[in-house]
Amino acid sequence: MNPPRLEIRAATEADRGAIWEIFHAVIASGDTYPFDPRMSREEAMAYWFAPGNNCYVAELDCLKQSSLPVGRRVVGSYLLRSNQSGGGSHVANAAFIVSSEARGQGVGRAMGEHCLDETRRLGFRAMQFNFVVSANESAVHLWQQLGFKIAGTLPGAFRHPQKGFVDVYVMFRSLIAD
Amino acid sequence: MNPPRLEIRAATEADRGAIWEIFHAVIASGDTYPFDPRMSREEAMAYWFAPGNNCYVAELDCLKQSSLPVGRRVVGSYLLRSNQSGGGSHVANAAFIVSSEARGQGVGRAMGEHCLDETRRLGFRAMQFNFVVSANESAVHLWQQLGFKIAGTLPGAFRHPQKGFVDVYVMFRSLIAD
Repeated sequence: MNPPRLEIRAATEADRGAIWEIFHAVIASGDTYPFDPRMSREEAMAYWFAPGNNCYVAELDCLKQSSLPVGRRVVGSYLLRSNQSGGGSHVANAAFIVSSEARGQGVGRAMGEHCLDETRRLGFRAMQFNFVVSANESAVHLWQQLGFKIAGTLPGAFRHPQKGFVDVYVMFRSLIAD
Repeated sequence: MNPPRLEIRAATEADRGAIWEIFHAVIASGDTYPFDPRMSREEAMAYWFAPGNNCYVAELDCLKQSSLPVGRRVVGSYLLRSNQSGGGSHVANAAFIVSSEARGQGVGRAMGEHCLDETRRLGFRAMQFNFVVSANESAVHLWQQLGFKIAGTLPGAFRHPQKGFVDVYVMFRSLIAD
């Protein structure tokens, strides 16, 4: 099988439909992000494309021999922004979504690496994730591999639809001196 | 001296002027909150009175013998809300402002205690502060006295106008089983 080719680029207005489809599936499962699963497309896109956000998409070019249907399409997206304003604006924050059909193909990792490059390019000094659900082990593992540390543990701060109250991690990575 | 009498009550539209005066002074000093000091009154009030926020004011009734000018006025305010939506909506978040003329009179502590009562009354299971500047020692100390623990430390996450990059604490307090 030829591996699908992945391109990560700035999101455009034309990507909104694809991003909403992925976003909606992610919040509908309710096991990774603290969003109301009933969030409307309008609310979701206002959040994702809020003023000051940098938005990107990961586009897969699936060849004939791939396990995915042939064609080129958006399979993931991420946003990058300041986590706070004023005296906290040198720390970035990001959020990532990947379509279920493209999981396990390195899309999240590729977006994470792209994101860290962009974060440095934009002059941020650090990156912080405010809410990594501990039960989302693949995400925790990925961020640790990309140099993030668990800066804090919020006991029972997420009500997981299957597991009940689970801990949440605040994860942090300095970007200076590297 | 008769001590000033303090009342904490729900904020109304008529309190906006007083809240903005206190808020503006707090963000102008730039040493406690990660807000842009140039934030407009409109932006600030949209933040403080955002849909879903519960807003309160602390009103001092200053008698003749008090060190403050005689009269009744708003000297502090706090907001209380869900820190997250969906699976994170059982954890509350709050923000507090006190006018400089009323510091050191227990206004912050009184609002903090009132806030914890309100948080329980509204059915939250915990309270989280996302961004307590470590250099704001009186705030850190007050929250510890009110049962909060430092759940995480964000290295250098705040650029203090005098002290440069200082650490920020995420503070957390469970409200169940007490």
